[in-house]
Amino acid sequence: MRIARFSIDGNVAFGAVEGDKPDELVLDIIKGIPFADFELSGTKVPLSKVRLLPPVLPNKVVAFGRNYAEHARELGNEVPEAPFAFFKPSTSVIGSGDEIAYPSFSQELHHEAELAVVIGRMCREVPRERVKDVILGYTCANDVTARDVQRREKQWARAKGFDTSCPLGPWVETDLDPSDLTIQLTVNGEQRQLGRTSEMIHPIEDLIVNISEAMTLLPGDVILTGTPAGVGPLNVGDTVAVTIEGIGTLTNKVIKRG
Amino acid sequence: MRIARFSIDGNVAFGAVEGDKPDELVLDIIKGIPFADFELSGTKVPLSKVRLLPPVLPNKVVAFGRNYAEHARELGNEVPEAPFAFFKPSTSVIGSGDEIAYPSFSQELHHEAELAVVIGRMCREVPRERVKDVILGYTCANDVTARDVQRREKQWARAKGFDTSCPLGPWVETDLDPSDLTIQLTVNGEQRQLGRTSEMIHPIEDLIVNISEAMTLLPGDVILTGTPAGVGPLNVGDTVAVTIEGIGTLTNKVIKRG
Repeated sequence: MRIARFSIDGNVAFGAVEGDKPDELVLDIIKGIPFADFELSGTKVPLSKVRLLPPVLPNKVVAFGRNYAEHARELGNEVPEAPFAFFKPSTSVIGSGDEIAYPSFSQELHHEAELAVVIGRMCREVPRERVKDVILGYTCANDVTARDVQRREKQWARAKGFDTSCPLGPWVETDLDPSDLTIQLTVNGEQRQLGRTSEMIHPIEDLIVNISEAMTLLPGDVILTGTPAGVGPLNVGDTVAVTIEGIGTLTNKVIKRG
Repeated sequence: MRIARFSIDGNVAFGAVEGDKPDELVLDIIKGIPFADFELSGTKVPLSKVRLLPPVLPNKVVAFGRNYAEHARELGNEVPEAPFAFFKPSTSVIGSGDEIAYPSFSQELHHEAELAVVIGRMCREVPRERVKDVILGYTCANDVTARDVQRREKQWARAKGFDTSCPLGPWVETDLDPSDLTIQLTVNGEQRQLGRTSEMIHPIEDLIVNISEAMTLLPGDVILTGTPAGVGPLNVGDTVAVTIEGIGTLTNKVIKRG
Protein backbone atom coordinates (compact mmCIF):
# COMPACT_ATOMS: atom_id res chain seq x y z
CA MET A 1 0.00 0.00 0.00
CA ARG A 2 1.14 3.54 -0.75
CA ILE A 3 0.30 5.86 2.16
CA ALA A 4 0.35 9.61 1.56
CA ARG A 5 -0.09 12.46 4.03
CA PHE A 6 -1.86 15.53 2.73
CA SER A 7 -3.83 18.60 3.60
CA ILE A 8 -7.28 19.29 2.31
CA ASP A 9 -9.50 22.20 3.36
CA GLY A 10 -7.03 22.99 6.15
CA ASN A 11 -7.11 19.49 7.64
CA VAL A 12 -4.25 16.98 7.65
CA ALA A 13 -5.03 13.36 6.77
CA PHE A 14 -3.42 10.14 5.63
CA GLY A 15 -4.71 8.36 2.54
CA ALA A 16 -4.07 5.20 0.56
CA VAL A 17 -2.94 6.06 -2.98
CA GLU A 18 -4.89 4.16 -5.64
CA GLY A 19 -4.44 4.02 -9.38
CA ASP A 20 -1.59 3.60 -11.83
CA LYS A 21 -1.69 6.62 -14.13
CA PRO A 22 0.17 9.54 -12.52
CA ASP A 23 -2.54 12.02 -13.48
CA GLU A 24 -5.43 9.91 -12.22
CA LEU A 25 -4.31 8.91 -8.72
CA VAL A 26 -6.93 8.89 -6.00
CA LEU A 27 -6.57 8.99 -2.22
CA ASP A 28 -8.79 6.78 -0.07
CA ILE A 29 -8.82 8.66 3.24
CA ILE A 30 -7.55 6.64 6.21
CA LYS A 31 -9.55 6.50 9.44
CA GLY A 32 -6.95 6.72 12.21
CA ILE A 33 -3.20 6.75 11.67
CA PRO A 34 -1.01 4.30 9.78
CA PHE A 35 1.05 3.50 12.89
CA ALA A 36 -1.83 1.56 14.45
CA ASP A 37 -4.66 -0.56 13.12
CA PHE A 38 -6.56 1.56 10.65
CA GLU A 39 -9.34 1.34 8.08
CA LEU A 40 -9.90 2.95 4.72
CA SER A 41 -12.91 5.25 4.89
CA GLY A 42 -13.98 4.70 1.29
CA THR A 43 -14.08 8.49 0.89
CA LYS A 44 -11.90 9.25 -2.11
CA VAL A 45 -10.32 12.47 -3.34
CA PRO A 46 -8.22 13.01 -6.46
CA LEU A 47 -4.56 13.44 -5.55
CA SER A 48 -4.44 16.41 -7.91
CA LYS A 49 -6.87 18.26 -5.61
CA VAL A 50 -4.78 18.05 -2.42
CA ARG A 51 -1.44 19.32 -1.26
CA LEU A 52 0.97 16.47 -0.48
CA LEU A 53 2.79 16.86 2.84
CA PRO A 54 5.89 15.01 4.00
CA PRO A 55 4.57 11.43 4.34
CA VAL A 56 5.54 11.41 8.02
CA LEU A 57 6.55 14.06 10.55
CA PRO A 58 9.57 12.37 12.10
CA ASN A 59 10.66 12.99 15.66
CA LYS A 60 14.18 12.38 14.34
CA VAL A 61 15.83 11.56 11.03
CA VAL A 62 18.91 9.36 11.44
CA ALA A 63 21.15 9.45 8.37
CA PHE A 64 24.04 7.12 7.65
CA GLY A 65 27.14 8.47 5.91
CA ARG A 66 29.23 6.85 3.18
CA ASN A 67 27.16 3.71 2.76
CA TYR A 68 27.93 3.32 -0.96
CA ALA A 69 31.63 2.72 -1.68
CA GLU A 70 31.73 4.60 -4.97
CA HIS A 71 30.21 7.71 -3.33
CA ALA A 72 32.72 7.64 -0.47
CA ARG A 73 35.52 7.55 -3.04
CA GLU A 74 34.13 10.35 -5.23
CA LEU A 75 34.52 12.76 -2.29
CA GLY A 76 37.99 11.43 -1.51
CA ASN A 77 36.91 9.61 1.65
CA GLU A 78 37.77 6.16 2.89
CA VAL A 79 35.01 3.59 3.11
CA PRO A 80 34.19 3.37 6.84
CA GLU A 81 34.50 -0.04 8.49
CA ALA A 82 31.52 0.49 10.74
CA PRO A 83 28.41 2.54 9.91
CA PHE A 84 28.29 6.07 11.31
CA ALA A 85 25.21 8.23 11.72
CA PHE A 86 24.18 11.85 12.06
CA PHE A 87 20.83 13.57 12.62
CA LYS A 88 18.70 15.81 10.47
CA PRO A 89 16.11 17.69 12.59
CA SER A 90 12.35 17.57 12.01
CA THR A 91 12.51 21.26 11.04
CA SER A 92 14.48 20.25 7.92
CA VAL A 93 11.72 18.01 6.51
CA ILE A 94 9.63 19.04 3.48
CA GLY A 95 7.39 17.05 1.14
CA SER A 96 7.29 16.44 -2.59
CA GLY A 97 6.40 19.64 -4.43
CA ASP A 98 7.79 21.83 -1.65
CA GLU A 99 10.72 24.11 -2.36
CA ILE A 100 14.33 23.69 -1.26
CA ALA A 101 15.47 27.11 -0.01
CA TYR A 102 19.13 27.73 -0.90
CA PRO A 103 20.66 28.84 2.41
CA SER A 104 22.48 32.15 2.70
CA PHE A 105 25.57 30.64 4.34
CA SER A 106 26.49 28.21 1.53
CA GLN A 107 27.69 28.58 -2.04
CA GLU A 108 27.79 24.85 -2.76
CA LEU A 109 24.52 23.00 -2.28
CA HIS A 110 24.60 19.31 -3.27
CA HIS A 111 21.88 16.71 -3.89
CA GLU A 112 22.08 13.20 -2.40
CA ALA A 113 19.39 10.70 -3.43
CA GLU A 114 18.63 8.15 -0.71
CA LEU A 115 16.25 5.35 0.16
CA ALA A 116 14.42 6.32 3.38
CA VAL A 117 13.11 3.75 5.85
CA VAL A 118 10.06 4.79 7.89
CA ILE A 119 9.82 3.26 11.36
CA GLY A 120 6.39 1.89 12.26
CA ARG A 121 6.63 1.18 15.96
CA MET A 122 8.55 2.23 19.03
CA CYS A 123 11.60 0.02 19.40
CA ARG A 124 15.07 -0.28 20.90
CA GLU A 125 17.84 -2.88 20.61
CA VAL A 126 16.13 -4.50 17.64
CA PRO A 127 17.61 -7.93 16.82
CA ARG A 128 18.55 -8.42 13.16
CA GLU A 129 15.75 -10.92 12.59
CA ARG A 130 13.11 -8.52 13.97
CA VAL A 131 14.08 -5.49 11.87
CA LYS A 132 11.32 -6.11 9.32
CA ASP A 133 8.72 -5.90 12.12
CA VAL A 134 9.61 -2.33 13.07
CA ILE A 135 9.49 -0.94 9.51
CA LEU A 136 6.29 0.69 8.23
CA GLY A 137 7.63 1.20 4.71
CA TYR A 138 9.93 3.12 2.39
CA THR A 139 10.04 6.49 0.72
CA CYS A 140 12.44 8.64 -1.31
CA ALA A 141 14.73 11.19 0.33
CA ASN A 142 17.14 13.87 -0.74
CA ASP A 143 19.86 14.48 1.87
CA VAL A 144 20.51 18.04 0.66
CA THR A 145 23.96 19.12 1.83
CA ALA A 146 25.85 22.41 2.04
CA ARG A 147 29.09 20.78 0.89
CA ASP A 148 31.30 23.81 1.62
CA VAL A 149 29.94 24.07 5.17
CA GLN A 150 30.34 20.31 5.63
CA ARG A 151 34.04 20.61 4.79
CA ARG A 152 34.52 23.49 7.24
CA GLU A 153 32.51 22.25 10.23
CA LYS A 154 33.52 19.09 12.07
CA GLN A 155 29.94 18.10 12.88
CA TRP A 156 27.23 18.52 10.28
CA ALA A 157 24.27 20.10 12.11
CA ARG A 158 24.30 23.21 9.92
CA ALA A 159 25.61 21.58 6.72
CA LYS A 160 22.89 18.91 6.65
CA GLY A 161 20.28 20.24 9.07
CA PHE A 162 19.18 23.58 7.64
CA ASP A 163 15.51 24.22 6.90
CA THR A 164 14.27 22.36 3.77
CA SER A 165 17.38 20.13 3.63
CA CYS A 166 15.35 16.92 4.02
CA PRO A 167 12.79 16.40 1.24
CA LEU A 168 10.82 13.16 1.85
CA GLY A 169 8.12 11.63 -0.32
CA PRO A 170 5.98 11.39 -2.28
CA TRP A 171 4.46 8.68 -0.05
CA VAL A 172 5.36 5.59 1.98
CA GLU A 173 5.29 2.26 0.14
CA THR A 174 4.59 -0.48 2.68
CA ASP A 175 4.83 -3.55 0.38
CA LEU A 176 8.35 -3.58 -0.99
CA ASP A 177 11.52 -5.63 -0.88
CA PRO A 178 14.13 -2.87 -0.52
CA SER A 179 17.18 -5.03 -1.16
CA ASP A 180 17.78 -4.36 -4.87
CA LEU A 181 16.00 -1.27 -6.18
CA THR A 182 17.13 1.27 -8.75
CA ILE A 183 17.70 4.71 -7.20
CA GLN A 184 18.01 7.59 -9.59
CA LEU A 185 18.30 11.36 -9.36
CA THR A 186 17.81 13.94 -12.12
CA VAL A 187 18.38 17.67 -12.17
CA ASN A 188 16.20 19.47 -14.74
CA GLY A 189 15.49 16.08 -16.30
CA GLU A 190 19.17 15.15 -16.71
CA GLN A 191 20.41 12.07 -14.89
CA ARG A 192 23.01 12.76 -12.20
CA GLN A 193 22.87 9.78 -9.81
CA LEU A 194 22.11 6.16 -10.59
CA GLY A 195 22.64 3.25 -8.24
CA ARG A 196 21.07 0.16 -6.79
CA THR A 197 20.22 -0.33 -3.14
CA SER A 198 22.04 -3.67 -3.35
CA GLU A 199 25.28 -1.65 -3.46
CA MET A 200 24.87 -0.48 0.16
CA ILE A 201 27.92 -1.42 2.22
CA HIS A 202 25.79 -1.94 5.34
CA PRO A 203 22.29 -3.20 4.52
CA ILE A 204 19.16 -1.81 6.18
CA GLU A 205 19.11 -4.56 8.83
CA ASP A 206 22.61 -3.60 10.00
CA LEU A 207 21.78 0.11 10.10
CA ILE A 208 18.72 -0.40 12.28
CA VAL A 209 20.53 -2.82 14.59
CA ASN A 210 23.36 -0.25 14.87
CA ILE A 211 21.25 2.79 15.71
CA SER A 212 18.61 1.04 17.84
CA GLU A 213 21.42 -0.39 19.99
CA ALA A 214 21.93 3.20 21.14
CA MET A 215 18.54 4.88 21.02
CA THR A 216 14.80 4.37 20.99
CA LEU A 217 13.19 4.77 17.58
CA LEU A 218 9.66 6.18 17.50
CA PRO A 219 6.82 5.65 15.00
CA GLY A 220 7.45 8.00 12.09
CA ASP A 221 11.20 8.25 12.66
CA VAL A 222 13.14 8.01 9.41
CA ILE A 223 16.42 6.28 8.61
CA LEU A 224 18.37 7.53 5.58
CA THR A 225 20.52 4.79 4.13
CA GLY A 226 23.23 6.67 2.25
CA THR A 227 23.63 7.98 -1.28
CA PRO A 228 25.13 6.34 -4.37
CA ALA A 229 27.81 8.07 -6.49
CA GLY A 230 27.07 11.11 -8.62
CA VAL A 231 26.39 13.82 -6.04
CA GLY A 232 26.71 17.31 -7.44
CA PRO A 233 25.58 20.91 -7.33
CA LEU A 234 22.07 22.31 -7.10
CA ASN A 235 21.42 25.86 -8.24
CA VAL A 236 18.54 28.25 -7.73
CA GLY A 237 15.88 27.44 -10.33
CA ASP A 238 16.80 23.75 -10.63
CA THR A 239 14.20 21.01 -10.34
CA VAL A 240 15.61 17.92 -8.62
CA ALA A 241 13.83 14.57 -8.70
CA VAL A 242 14.61 11.34 -6.82
CA THR A 243 13.00 8.22 -8.26
CA ILE A 244 13.17 4.85 -6.54
CA GLU A 245 11.89 1.71 -8.23
CA GLY A 246 8.61 0.58 -6.71
CA ILE A 247 8.07 3.79 -4.75
CA GLY A 248 7.72 6.84 -6.97
CA THR A 249 9.29 10.24 -7.54
CA LEU A 250 10.13 12.99 -5.06
CA THR A 251 10.34 16.33 -6.87
CA ASN A 252 11.52 19.67 -5.47
CA LYS A 253 12.46 22.99 -6.95
CA VAL A 254 15.37 25.04 -5.59
CA ILE A 255 14.58 28.66 -4.74
CA LYS A 256 16.53 31.47 -3.15
CA ARG A 257 15.73 31.62 0.54
CA GLY A 258 13.26 34.48 1.02
CA MET B 1 11.04 32.73 37.95
CA ARG B 2 12.00 29.07 38.19
CA ILE B 3 9.68 26.94 36.04
CA ALA B 4 9.58 23.20 36.64
CA ARG B 5 7.76 20.49 34.72
CA PHE B 6 6.43 17.60 36.75
CA SER B 7 3.95 14.79 36.95
CA ILE B 8 1.39 14.46 39.69
CA ASP B 9 -1.36 11.83 39.82
CA GLY B 10 -0.52 10.86 36.26
CA ASN B 11 -0.88 14.38 34.86
CA VAL B 12 1.92 16.56 33.49
CA ALA B 13 2.03 20.23 34.52
CA PHE B 14 4.33 23.21 34.75
CA GLY B 15 4.79 25.02 38.02
CA ALA B 16 6.62 28.04 39.42
CA VAL B 17 9.11 26.97 42.08
CA GLU B 18 8.79 28.99 45.29
CA GLY B 19 10.90 28.98 48.44
CA ASP B 20 14.57 28.98 49.31
CA LYS B 21 15.18 25.92 51.49
CA PRO B 22 15.77 22.86 49.28
CA ASP B 23 13.51 20.68 51.43
CA GLU B 24 10.64 23.14 51.56
CA LEU B 25 10.18 24.11 47.91
CA VAL B 26 6.62 24.52 46.66
CA LEU B 27 5.22 24.48 43.13
CA ASP B 28 2.54 26.99 42.15
CA ILE B 29 0.80 25.22 39.27
CA ILE B 30 0.82 27.16 35.99
CA LYS B 31 -2.40 27.61 34.01
CA GLY B 32 -1.36 27.18 30.38
CA ILE B 33 2.20 26.71 29.16
CA PRO B 34 5.27 28.84 29.78
CA PHE B 35 5.77 29.49 26.06
CA ALA B 36 2.74 31.78 25.93
CA ASP B 37 1.05 34.15 28.33
CA PHE B 38 0.26 32.19 31.45
CA GLU B 39 -1.02 32.66 34.98
CA LEU B 40 -0.17 31.04 38.28
CA SER B 41 -3.17 29.10 39.56
CA GLY B 42 -2.44 29.66 43.23
CA THR B 43 -2.78 25.90 43.72
CA LYS B 44 0.43 24.81 45.44
CA VAL B 45 2.02 21.41 45.91
CA PRO B 46 5.23 20.56 47.76
CA LEU B 47 8.01 19.75 45.30
CA SER B 48 8.83 16.71 47.42
CA LYS B 49 5.41 15.22 46.52
CA VAL B 50 5.87 15.29 42.73
CA ARG B 51 8.17 13.69 40.22
CA LEU B 52 10.25 16.27 38.37
CA LEU B 53 10.32 15.77 34.60
CA PRO B 54 12.76 17.29 32.12
CA PRO B 55 11.84 21.00 32.32
CA VAL B 56 11.05 21.02 28.60
CA LEU B 57 10.50 18.33 25.94
CA PRO B 58 12.66 19.72 23.15
CA ASN B 59 11.96 19.06 19.50
CA LYS B 60 15.73 19.24 19.09
CA VAL B 61 18.78 19.78 21.27
CA VAL B 62 21.57 21.63 19.46
CA ALA B 63 24.92 21.20 21.19
CA PHE B 64 28.07 23.17 20.47
CA GLY B 65 31.44 21.43 20.65
CA ARG B 66 34.70 22.74 22.10
CA ASN B 67 33.43 26.08 23.33
CA TYR B 68 35.82 26.27 26.27
CA ALA B 69 39.50 26.43 25.23
CA GLU B 70 40.84 24.46 28.18
CA HIS B 71 38.42 21.58 27.49
CA ALA B 72 39.35 21.45 23.79
CA ARG B 73 43.01 21.16 24.81
CA GLU B 74 42.45 18.48 27.46
CA LEU B 75 41.19 16.12 24.75
CA GLY B 76 44.07 17.06 22.43
CA ASN B 77 41.87 19.07 20.06
CA GLU B 78 42.46 22.43 18.48
CA VAL B 79 40.21 25.30 19.45
CA PRO B 80 37.83 25.72 16.49
CA GLU B 81 37.75 29.13 14.79
CA ALA B 82 34.02 29.00 14.15
CA PRO B 83 31.42 27.28 16.35
CA PHE B 84 30.29 23.84 15.24
CA ALA B 85 27.14 22.05 16.33
CA PHE B 86 25.67 18.57 16.59
CA PHE B 87 22.25 17.27 17.65
CA LYS B 88 21.08 15.22 20.60
CA PRO B 89 17.63 13.70 19.93
CA SER B 90 14.57 14.23 22.12
CA THR B 91 14.73 10.53 23.03
CA SER B 92 18.01 11.22 24.90
CA VAL B 93 16.45 13.71 27.33
CA ILE B 94 15.84 12.84 31.00
CA GLY B 95 15.16 15.01 34.05
CA SER B 96 16.82 15.53 37.40
CA GLY B 97 16.51 12.41 39.53
CA ASP B 98 16.23 10.14 36.49
CA GLU B 99 18.88 7.52 35.85
CA ILE B 100 21.64 7.56 33.24
CA ALA B 101 21.70 4.07 31.71
CA TYR B 102 25.26 3.02 30.85
CA PRO B 103 25.00 1.84 27.23
CA SER B 104 26.11 -1.63 26.24
CA PHE B 105 28.28 -0.45 23.35
CA SER B 106 30.63 1.78 25.38
CA GLN B 107 33.25 1.18 28.03
CA GLU B 108 34.09 4.86 28.54
CA LEU B 109 31.18 7.07 29.55
CA HIS B 110 32.13 10.70 30.30
CA HIS B 111 30.29 13.58 31.99
CA GLU B 112 30.19 17.08 30.47
CA ALA B 113 28.56 19.85 32.55
CA GLU B 114 26.94 22.53 30.40
CA LEU B 115 24.75 25.61 30.61
CA ALA B 116 21.58 24.94 28.58
CA VAL B 117 19.59 27.71 26.92
CA VAL B 118 15.85 27.07 26.50
CA ILE B 119 14.24 28.72 23.47
CA GLY B 120 10.95 30.49 24.18
CA ARG B 121 9.58 31.26 20.75
CA MET B 122 9.77 30.07 17.16
CA CYS B 123 12.57 31.93 15.40
CA ARG B 124 14.99 31.89 12.48
CA GLU B 125 17.86 34.15 11.42
CA VAL B 126 17.87 35.87 14.80
CA PRO B 127 19.92 39.09 14.78
CA ARG B 128 22.45 39.38 17.59
CA GLU B 129 20.52 42.16 19.32
CA ARG B 130 17.29 40.10 19.34
CA VAL B 131 18.76 36.92 20.85
CA LYS B 132 17.53 37.79 24.36
CA ASP B 133 13.95 37.95 23.03
CA VAL B 134 13.91 34.32 21.88
CA ILE B 135 15.25 32.87 25.15
CA LEU B 136 12.82 31.57 27.78
CA GLY B 137 15.54 30.82 30.33
CA TYR B 138 18.40 28.60 31.41
CA THR B 139 18.87 25.19 32.96
CA CYS B 140 21.68 22.73 33.74
CA ALA B 141 22.68 19.99 31.31
CA ASN B 142 24.99 17.01 31.25
CA ASP B 143 26.16 16.18 27.71
CA VAL B 144 26.87 12.54 28.59
CA THR B 145 29.27 11.10 26.01
CA ALA B 146 30.49 7.62 25.08
CA ARG B 147 34.04 8.85 24.58
CA ASP B 148 35.33 5.61 23.01
CA VAL B 149 32.49 5.59 20.48
CA GLN B 150 33.06 9.30 19.79
CA ARG B 151 36.69 8.56 18.87
CA ARG B 152 35.68 5.71 16.54
CA GLU B 153 32.70 7.26 14.74
CA LYS B 154 33.12 10.32 12.56
CA GLN B 155 29.69 11.73 13.42
CA TRP B 156 28.42 11.57 16.98
CA ALA B 157 24.80 10.38 16.73
CA ARG B 158 25.48 7.22 18.76
CA ALA B 159 28.25 8.61 20.99
CA LYS B 160 26.17 11.57 22.19
CA GLY B 161 22.61 10.60 21.25
CA PHE B 162 21.92 7.37 23.11
CA ASP B 163 18.93 7.12 25.45
CA THR B 164 19.46 9.03 28.75
CA SER B 165 22.52 10.90 27.41
CA CYS B 166 20.91 14.32 27.90
CA PRO B 167 19.97 15.05 31.51
CA LEU B 168 18.31 18.50 31.76
CA GLY B 169 17.07 20.28 34.87
CA PRO B 170 16.08 20.69 37.57
CA TRP B 171 14.02 23.63 36.21
CA VAL B 172 14.26 26.64 33.90
CA GLU B 173 15.41 29.91 35.49
CA THR B 174 13.94 32.80 33.48
CA ASP B 175 15.54 35.74 35.34
CA LEU B 176 19.28 35.33 34.98
CA ASP B 177 22.26 37.02 33.38
CA PRO B 178 24.12 33.99 31.95
CA SER B 179 27.35 35.78 31.09
CA ASP B 180 29.48 34.94 34.13
CA LEU B 181 28.13 32.04 36.20
CA THR B 182 30.02 29.32 38.06
CA ILE B 183 29.43 25.89 36.52
CA GLN B 184 30.46 22.92 38.59
CA LEU B 185 30.20 19.14 38.36
CA THR B 186 30.71 16.58 41.09
CA VAL B 187 30.82 12.79 40.99
CA ASN B 188 29.85 11.18 44.31
CA GLY B 189 30.31 14.59 45.93
CA GLU B 190 33.84 15.08 44.61
CA GLN B 191 34.48 18.06 42.36
CA ARG B 192 35.48 17.16 38.80
CA GLN B 193 34.62 20.19 36.65
CA LEU B 194 34.71 23.86 37.59
CA GLY B 195 34.45 26.76 35.17
CA ARG B 196 32.74 30.02 34.50
CA THR B 197 30.38 30.72 31.61
CA SER B 198 32.48 33.82 30.88
CA GLU B 199 35.16 31.44 29.57
CA MET B 200 33.03 30.42 26.56
CA ILE B 201 34.90 31.07 23.31
CA HIS B 202 31.68 31.91 21.49
CA PRO B 203 29.09 33.53 23.77
CA ILE B 204 25.41 32.55 23.73
CA GLU B 205 24.48 35.36 21.32
CA ASP B 206 26.94 34.05 18.71
CA LEU B 207 25.75 30.45 19.11
CA ILE B 208 22.10 31.36 18.53
CA VAL B 209 22.94 33.62 15.58
CA ASN B 210 25.02 30.76 14.14
CA ILE B 211 22.43 28.00 14.42
CA SER B 212 19.34 30.09 13.66
CA GLU B 213 21.02 31.26 10.45
CA ALA B 214 20.56 27.66 9.28
CA MET B 215 17.42 26.39 10.95
CA THR B 216 14.17 27.30 12.66
CA LEU B 217 14.25 26.99 16.44
CA LEU B 218 11.01 26.00 18.15
CA PRO B 219 9.67 26.77 21.64
CA GLY B 220 11.29 24.28 24.01
CA ASP B 221 14.32 23.64 21.82
CA VAL B 222 17.53 23.56 23.83
CA ILE B 223 20.99 24.90 23.02
CA LEU B 224 23.94 23.35 24.89
CA THR B 225 26.80 25.80 25.13
CA GLY B 226 29.85 23.56 25.64
CA THR B 227 31.64 22.13 28.63
CA PRO B 228 34.56 23.50 30.68
CA ALA B 229 37.68 21.41 31.40
CA GLY B 230 37.65 18.42 33.72
CA VAL B 231 35.58 15.88 31.81
CA GLY B 232 36.10 12.34 33.01
CA PRO B 233 34.64 8.88 33.49
CA LEU B 234 31.28 7.90 34.92
CA ASN B 235 30.81 4.42 36.33
CA VAL B 236 27.75 2.38 37.24
CA GLY B 237 26.67 3.42 40.74
CA ASP B 238 28.05 6.97 40.48
CA THR B 239 25.92 9.99 41.32
CA VAL B 240 26.75 12.94 39.07
CA ALA B 241 25.58 16.48 39.86
CA VAL B 242 25.79 19.65 37.75
CA THR B 243 25.37 22.90 39.67
CA ILE B 244 25.11 26.28 37.96
CA GLU B 245 25.09 29.49 39.97
CA GLY B 246 21.63 31.03 40.06
CA ILE B 247 19.90 27.94 38.65
CA GLY B 248 20.26 24.90 40.87
CA THR B 249 21.53 21.33 40.76
CA LEU B 250 20.83 18.56 38.23
CA THR B 251 21.46 15.16 39.84
CA ASN B 252 21.50 11.76 38.15
CA LYS B 253 22.63 8.30 39.14
CA VAL B 254 24.36 5.99 36.67
CA ILE B 255 22.87 2.51 36.37
CA LYS B 256 23.54 -0.47 34.15
CA ARG B 257 21.14 -0.43 31.20
CA GLY B 258 18.43 -2.99 31.96
